[in-house]
Amino acid sequence: MRVYNFSAGPAVLPEEVLKKAASEMFEHGDSGQSVMEMSHRSKEYEAIHNECEALMREILAIPDNYKVLFLQGGANMQFDMIPLNLLKTGKADFVVTGQWAGKAQSEAKRYGEANIVASSKDKTFSYIPELDSSKFDPNADYFHICFNNTIFGTRFPELPETGSVPLVADMSSYILSEPVNVSDFGLIYACAQKNVAPAGVTIVIIREDLIRDLSDSKVPTMLQYKTYADSNSLYNTPPTYSIYMCKLVLEWVKSKGGLSAMKEHNEKKAAVLYDYLDTSKLFRSTVEKRFRSQMNVPFVTGNEEIDKKFIKEAKAAGFVNLAGHRSVGGMRASIYNAMPIEGVEKLVAFMAEFEKNN
Amino acid sequence: MRVYNFSAGPAVLPEEVLKKAASEMFEHGDSGQSVMEMSHRSKEYEAIHNECEALMREILAIPDNYKVLFLQGGANMQFDMIPLNLLKTGKADFVVTGQWAGKAQSEAKRYGEANIVASSKDKTFSYIPELDSSKFDPNADYFHICFNNTIFGTRFPELPETGSVPLVADMSSYILSEPVNVSDFGLIYACAQKNVAPAGVTIVIIREDLIRDLSDSKVPTMLQYKTYADSNSLYNTPPTYSIYMCKLVLEWVKSKGGLSAMKEHNEKKAAVLYDYLDTSKLFRSTVEKRFRSQMNVPFVTGNEEIDKKFIKEAKAAGFVNLAGHRSVGGMRASIYNAMPIEGVEKLVAFMAEFEKNN
Repeated sequence: MRVYNFSAGPAVLPEEVLKKAASEMFEHGDSGQSVMEMSHRSKEYEAIHNECEALMREILAIPDNYKVLFLQGGANMQFDMIPLNLLKTGKADFVVTGQWAGKAQSEAKRYGEANIVASSKDKTFSYIPELDSSKFDPNADYFHICFNNTIFGTRFPELPETGSVPLVADMSSYILSEPVNVSDFGLIYACAQKNVAPAGVTIVIIREDLIRDLSDSKVPTMLQYKTYADSNSLYNTPPTYSIYMCKLVLEWVKSKGGLSAMKEHNEKKAAVLYDYLDTSKLFRSTVEKRFRSQMNVPFVTGNEEIDKKFIKEAKAAGFVNLAGHRSVGGMRASIYNAMPIEGVEKLVAFMAEFEKNN
Repeated sequence: MRVYNFSAGPAVLPEEVLKKAASEMFEHGDSGQSVMEMSHRSKEYEAIHNECEALMREILAIPDNYKVLFLQGGANMQFDMIPLNLLKTGKADFVVTGQWAGKAQSEAKRYGEANIVASSKDKTFSYIPELDSSKFDPNADYFHICFNNTIFGTRFPELPETGSVPLVADMSSYILSEPVNVSDFGLIYACAQKNVAPAGVTIVIIREDLIRDLSDSKVPTMLQYKTYADSNSLYNTPPTYSIYMCKLVLEWVKSKGGLSAMKEHNEKKAAVLYDYLDTSKLFRSTVEKRFRSQMNVPFVTGNEEIDKKFIKEAKAAGFVNLAGHRSVGGMRASIYNAMPIEGVEKLVAFMAEFEKNN
């Protein structure tokens, strides 16, 4: 029997997508092959690859002057690729709102000046700090934020005004959850394993003028955006099966009504959980209301023993991966696109029952 | 109906493996989840991950002083990681026996002196050059070869004697095809999509003393072997599903009798094809006998029009991906572990029939 999986990533996938993938595993269409076995230079695979990109462009309404790249290495690899490709003056601005935002900043320090314009570390990243734009460097090569903080369950209530400095956003746990105005950004990146596909592919959406020729530099060919932009992400063998899964997920998003429908679905789910947390006498949200993520909902009882007991009993009842990130403890329910509202409703019913008994 | 897929990679996978993956797609064991949905920090996934490594160690008889790493980015990423991690004197030796060996050398030039000790470019890489060890640099940080050349269908008849200089080998299209003495090498690497798994995971087997602490360098964290060696390849989310598929393939290899059985199976298949090529009046092998690969068999008719006609008619008859690499033309049959002997026998029968009619 399928469980309700609240993992922060790799995370739950739509059941329809898994069933379709299973049914096509042995033979895809009339190709006589599994997608896994297709040459990445074959017509069969290129159709999947190009359809995946086309769907991504359609669903996210990506303007023509942006490239969509399929990479590997997750968000962590982007912590290197972004400074290696974007630094020219050697300076960039960062808002540190959690562990990943912090890693993006600390990794960028290898290559230049990584200025922290604001941080919410003082309160365990439970809020998004006020931004004082007089602290922004107008000559920075980019301004980096992590739009939704998977571990701490916060998200930016609005975007920073960075003027002509390109805004770069880690959208790993946010992308595809609601409409976004791509033109507000110079570069958007997201690992797949939250809302997009299984782990193994990383999406980069980059404004074309930010793609530089670094062929004579010491930047590894595989870490140059131009390598992928010039080759339709087929410079070498891409993670073909992950891209196929991404296509299936995008088809599912489209069939459900696209990103406005996803937004409605996700707001409804999040409301069910936050409404309960705000009335519960046992559980509480750890995040200030206006900064709350719709995707990742951390909560605590304030008592570690009870937290542990809850996680254990929840697991036995079929609600899995509810432990908070190992760096913070407590609980966290990640409720990405593929989590059905029934999953959240049943979790809340289980929490209420647990509350009664504890 | 399944075709016979002679793709050089991504390539044919064992049918038993595809069927097992399909049957477990929706729910793996009693986990209630697809492997794709499992948190990489969960007990369920860690069991898969560790079993995959254990099988790799067992099947390849990997000594204890070697680490097995699961990376991303394919062999191309290794063309950067190897020099970035191994160069200390700044010098390395290369034998250029094809396109990939050449890329490993040209990419290493970004970071140091990449000395070509021998090349077979003069005859379109149709042989492995004699090596004059007096040309080897005894102070080189490593000595690089591509053991089996996927595009040109050659392989080293014996290993170069590099003394205390670590031998580094690209084994992408050779690994798991027969037993190998891992101790002969400092580092072995292989992309998965030939003999190991679908595209998306890269295997590195590295002698522990070659793993350096580069935390204070400009080498990206994600390109440091130590990052993976210290974390059991779980520094960030690995390509979990590709690693699961790798485990299934390794289980299949073991069930068939391991690498000595693979060697026998592969020699038999290759003999069927080479024996026919050596007697055919229409088709001929492009490679000198003693350098012939057991995995990739290029052949030509000497007439481009007939080559094209053959590829087209073969495809219609269910033998696909027989076109040679776009850089060389002609034909190529890649006959990795998962290609059954029937596939090669039927191909040869088809070729003989085609020869009669043309």
